[in-house]
Amino acid sequence: MDLRNALHSDSPTPLYRQLYEQIALKIRNGELAPGERLPATRELAGLLGLNRTTVSAAYEILESEGMIAGQVGRGSFVTAPAAPAPAGIAWANMFGRSSAAAPPNTGTAAEVISFATSRPSREMFPLDDFRASCQSVLERGDLADILQLGSPSGYEPLRRYLLEEARRRGLAHEGDDLLIANGCQQALDLIGRVLLRPGDAVAVEDPVYPGLKNLLLALGARLVGIPVTHDGLDVSQLERVLENERPRFIVVTPNFQNPTGATMPGPARAALVEAARQSGVPIIENDPYGDLRYLGAPVPAVKQIDERNGTVLVRSFSKVSFPGLRIGWVLGPKPLLDRLRQAKETADLHSDQLSQAVLLEFAESGRLEAHRRRVLASGAERLRTTIEACRNFLPPGTRWTEPEGGMNLWVRLPDPLDAGELLARAQSGGVSYLPARYFMVARQEPGGLRLSFAGIDPAHIVKGLQILGTVVAAEQAAGQRLEPVTAMV
Amino acid sequence: MDLRNALHSDSPTPLYRQLYEQIALKIRNGELAPGERLPATRELAGLLGLNRTTVSAAYEILESEGMIAGQVGRGSFVTAPAAPAPAGIAWANMFGRSSAAAPPNTGTAAEVISFATSRPSREMFPLDDFRASCQSVLERGDLADILQLGSPSGYEPLRRYLLEEARRRGLAHEGDDLLIANGCQQALDLIGRVLLRPGDAVAVEDPVYPGLKNLLLALGARLVGIPVTHDGLDVSQLERVLENERPRFIVVTPNFQNPTGATMPGPARAALVEAARQSGVPIIENDPYGDLRYLGAPVPAVKQIDERNGTVLVRSFSKVSFPGLRIGWVLGPKPLLDRLRQAKETADLHSDQLSQAVLLEFAESGRLEAHRRRVLASGAERLRTTIEACRNFLPPGTRWTEPEGGMNLWVRLPDPLDAGELLARAQSGGVSYLPARYFMVARQEPGGLRLSFAGIDPAHIVKGLQILGTVVAAEQAAGQRLEPVTAMV
Repeated sequence: MDLRNALHSDSPTPLYRQLYEQIALKIRNGELAPGERLPATRELAGLLGLNRTTVSAAYEILESEGMIAGQVGRGSFVTAPAAPAPAGIAWANMFGRSSAAAPPNTGTAAEVISFATSRPSREMFPLDDFRASCQSVLERGDLADILQLGSPSGYEPLRRYLLEEARRRGLAHEGDDLLIANGCQQALDLIGRVLLRPGDAVAVEDPVYPGLKNLLLALGARLVGIPVTHDGLDVSQLERVLENERPRFIVVTPNFQNPTGATMPGPARAALVEAARQSGVPIIENDPYGDLRYLGAPVPAVKQIDERNGTVLVRSFSKVSFPGLRIGWVLGPKPLLDRLRQAKETADLHSDQLSQAVLLEFAESGRLEAHRRRVLASGAERLRTTIEACRNFLPPGTRWTEPEGGMNLWVRLPDPLDAGELLARAQSGGVSYLPARYFMVARQEPGGLRLSFAGIDPAHIVKGLQILGTVVAAEQAAGQRLEPVTAMV
Repeated sequence: MDLRNALHSDSPTPLYRQLYEQIALKIRNGELAPGERLPATRELAGLLGLNRTTVSAAYEILESEGMIAGQVGRGSFVTAPAAPAPAGIAWANMFGRSSAAAPPNTGTAAEVISFATSRPSREMFPLDDFRASCQSVLERGDLADILQLGSPSGYEPLRRYLLEEARRRGLAHEGDDLLIANGCQQALDLIGRVLLRPGDAVAVEDPVYPGLKNLLLALGARLVGIPVTHDGLDVSQLERVLENERPRFIVVTPNFQNPTGATMPGPARAALVEAARQSGVPIIENDPYGDLRYLGAPVPAVKQIDERNGTVLVRSFSKVSFPGLRIGWVLGPKPLLDRLRQAKETADLHSDQLSQAVLLEFAESGRLEAHRRRVLASGAERLRTTIEACRNFLPPGTRWTEPEGGMNLWVRLPDPLDAGELLARAQSGGVSYLPARYFMVARQEPGGLRLSFAGIDPAHIVKGLQILGTVVAAEQAAGQRLEPVTAMV
């Protein structure tokens, strides 16, 4: 039973569930026949480099579903298949729209160092500070109100706090309003639901965050990719698109863009605002990483410099605190926010109020800012380590971005290497990443890949890039051996 | 400054924020001119029957926005208007689809007894049990995992718990899967997003829960209303619709339907399943109230009796615990659930994990069941009180449903009374409800109104229905005095 390559330690799906699903699949497709004996949990755990409890948990689900049965002293056996289910709905024919491309498997079970997920370091979560914030919420006089049905706009004390902070920072214009959503992802989805009609063009960065690409495609949008340069979205290209394509809106991530890490300098932002103003197109400023600047001077937000009030700002607690608590917000002109509030009510009534109250307490108590300072120190070290390791271990001809903050940088392998084709080999070697194809909109960049460095400690960053360098060099050498042969044919 | 009728104590928007918005509106439209003095907080609080702190909070926001300014010893004054904002986006022209009808104002500030919201009683929340459940979560070994980015399927321990419970209850068929969403509302919205194309027909109950109607309309669905009888959705009418309209799916609330309170008996459910089977149409079984049966014997779920596996079950913690924690789930065939998981990831990555963990602890510890028993005792009393009060105080010719559980019953005033027209008078008298027009799909039922009784204590239920009875009787008398006159013209 070969399962080694099917398990991914950095997947959000727990390993025991992945193992369960893999074995269930093998039983369903007949690879494991009725009566066949499964390996003992200890044996399989050893084979796969897993804890025995992980294997036991997977076996328990299989048993509870009647797919395997234990026999005392003998082990677990695949049971006879159940009678076929009565004829029912052909569910597979029920789905109108094609589904988004699933993200790749970007890690294997045992010892893979994963640069694949743009998320904070679990080890750095300030658990005691979090506990203290929860305690304060549990002692609040309005606890029953927090537990009762709330407002689609959000938990009002948090909403006021965020709005006041936005005013202090010069981000809120007169007539702006603020809505709390389940992270930036839902904020962007609600904006799409309110503004888009199927077939509408939307201008996005190319490469772009896959979660944004997928939600826009699911809403029937036509994506127009604007190349990302060292200075972020290429405004001169955007100007051409604004003239020719009449996009419904522009989505831009001016700070530490995902995946490239690029930041738009002030003049580029001013040019963006001017181009959008002239064409009357709104800007959606997606800013999940803005509070994570490790180097260099801050640049004013697009929202701040857009005086015509045509920019909508989307921010979140996720990257700078706890992404498991799904709280972000949208700041923008009231007519739009009124519609977003209706869409929010339709989507899920309102965001979770317990987490809203806890995050308010975490922020108001100063714990968020203390945590952010630690995250900045760690992020600066990890970024520096990543760039040094790129220099030390990636073969000549490789290029990479050097961001000033955020969680990601972009690597381009020397031609003709394909980062997507290389991935399986890298994973076998013990390192993973996301290849370019998940980010690209209109262009191709086969050598591109994203390294998400923020969640990995420096020692593993070095080791991971050492492995990647070795894999890339070996691939290059193999290519060079092959090429003359190909030329001779 | 007349504000009394603009404030609604049972709105999810806090009173201070309503007050702020009302005053801001009056300043913006010139009703309150620059230089005009606002009433002192104590004075306005007295006028409106509000706490002084409520008025102060509203004034604070107005002041922070520069709309009023305080002068020591003199009071607060309306400031001169700011310079007009620079020309910007015409936001009002940006919205493709028309917005859903906003729910009416269903209460006024002071002393209104509101039957308008279908939600549990805030006073019955077991706060200490909730605190204890949070404590346990804070001590869990996987707290950091709860705070980290999670799986679109849901927090795995809760998912397993719910799936095992569904299996124990005979609700889960082989090949079923379960996804956690932000309450029933999001579960229904995700189902719509996956299954519907604009223009598709959907069969729904008539009258129906407005949140469902709005989300289906927002997705471009064409609603086909099936009348609700004493036995719930009228299956013989549905059969005709299935033949003629080919709906994409049917949504049904077999237990204590919102708004009628009707429950489908076993034979009606079997007939529903058979009709759906013959036409190959899936059933979405929306069951937020199923655990709130006060009287009579339980009826097997549609999901349970549908052996072709064409039913998808949607449930939630909201009605039986804390609606401020937005956690519900969908149970159904894996091919559909795979698509729902993708849609969930696109919508907001995953549901809040802190609340998932807390609700799991609340359920596993037995506290949920203990709370449910208290809610059942209270609900039974409130239902009985409501029905008795209907009998005692509503004029002859009024009819009402007598549900066996849930939170709502349906009243039909004698012809030619219109519950929508009557609402303002009822509110002035001190009672509010939701009139039929928010629930109706194809039919009209001007005399219809919903009474949500679960959140009101028995004494106020009696008082509220006394008032309603008086208002209805007065309206009847006025109508009778008028009618002969009309006839003479």
